[in-house]
Amino acid sequence: MALMDINVAPLGTASPSVGKFVVEMQRLLAEQGLPYELTDMGTTIEGTVDQLLAAARALHESPFLMGAKRVYTVIKIDERRDKEIHLGQKIRSVKEKL
Amino acid sequence: MALMDINVAPLGTASPSVGKFVVEMQRLLAEQGLPYELTDMGTTIEGTVDQLLAAARALHESPFLMGAKRVYTVIKIDERRDKEIHLGQKIRSVKEKL
Amino acid sequence: MALMDINVAPLGTASPSVGKFVVEMQRLLAEQGLPYELTDMGTTIEGTVDQLLAAARALHESPFLMGAKRVYTVIKIDERRDKEIHLGQKIRSVKEKL
Amino acid sequence: MALMDINVAPLGTASPSVGKFVVEMQRLLAEQGLPYELTDMGTTIEGTVDQLLAAARALHESPFLMGAKRVYTVIKIDERRDKEIHLGQKIRSVKEKL
Repeated sequence: MALMDINVAPLGTASPSVGKFVVEMQRLLAEQGLPYELTDMGTTIEGTVDQLLAAARALHESPFLMGAKRVYTVIKIDERRDKEIHLGQKIRSVKEKL
Repeated sequence: MALMDINVAPLGTASPSVGKFVVEMQRLLAEQGLPYELTDMGTTIEGTVDQLLAAARALHESPFLMGAKRVYTVIKIDERRDKEIHLGQKIRSVKEKL
Repeated sequence: MALMDINVAPLGTASPSVGKFVVEMQRLLAEQGLPYELTDMGTTIEGTVDQLLAAARALHESPFLMGAKRVYTVIKIDERRDKEIHLGQKIRSVKEKL
Repeated sequence: MALMDINVAPLGTASPSVGKFVVEMQRLLAEQGLPYELTDMGTTIEGTVDQLLAAARALHESPFLMGAKRVYTVIKIDERRDKEIHLGQKIRSVKEKL
């Protein structure tokens, strides 16, 4: 299992507000059936790397379907094979140690 | 006001677990007095860009103080000057529209 | 066409030097037949988003095949549909304007 | 010494082309006196972490001075204390091993 943080930004939209794109991406994510969490700076998703990259593909496409001419996507993937990692787990683990 | 997402990873530590570094960084952040939120893939902090870069400086230094030889830090900064942005606000705004 | 910048870092390797992983990734990339350029902080690749994500998949897997237990990958994708973008083009365009 | 890769994107500009912002940032960088290299997906700069974060501060501010309302900046910093790292060095080292 791996975690992915993704932020998809349309460039060259007339308004600096990109809320409508974020809303559409959340709808897309809910459809895909992977555990995910919206954060202030992106969305974190849990899955296999193949599932995560398929989700990234759909999310990156989404602003183009809504009229954007240019999309800039930033992705961070953290995968461990020595132990399972799940959404929410790192936060719990750190808070226990504080 | 701006938001910053930061992830600080020591490279070349013997173990793939970096929990102790994350715990130390949370302690550092609590000291700085800026609103922040630990996420599964980093930490999101709210402040002026000067405050955020000062926090980034301290967080990036932290693994070296604990013995790391190499540190790889990824930072995303989102700043708006047409309206205020605060921690938690984008999440609320998107959830209202869903 | 799109451009992707990718950096793949194994965590928890005994040494902070990751050169052997970078060398292996360059070999993988040469096999894939996409135009690419090694930079000091990653590798930039040109292709369709599907090609780029397939390359990202292979590159992210590579350190695991060499024994890494945890891999942290950072990807930036820039795609335009209003005009073609190619490797080397932005650099030329900016240098002409300086 | 450390290396920083930085990409500064104005959001909510009417045009998807951000070339004029990139040109201005190159002018700013030339003034700062740090070694740097423009890449297709950002700019790589060499310096101490303090110098790099000061440069990041100036570059992030630049689109606001040209009228942008929102700026999204992505920064990667790689610092080693076990050996010197310089611009161009990783590329040479990898090419020698291929």
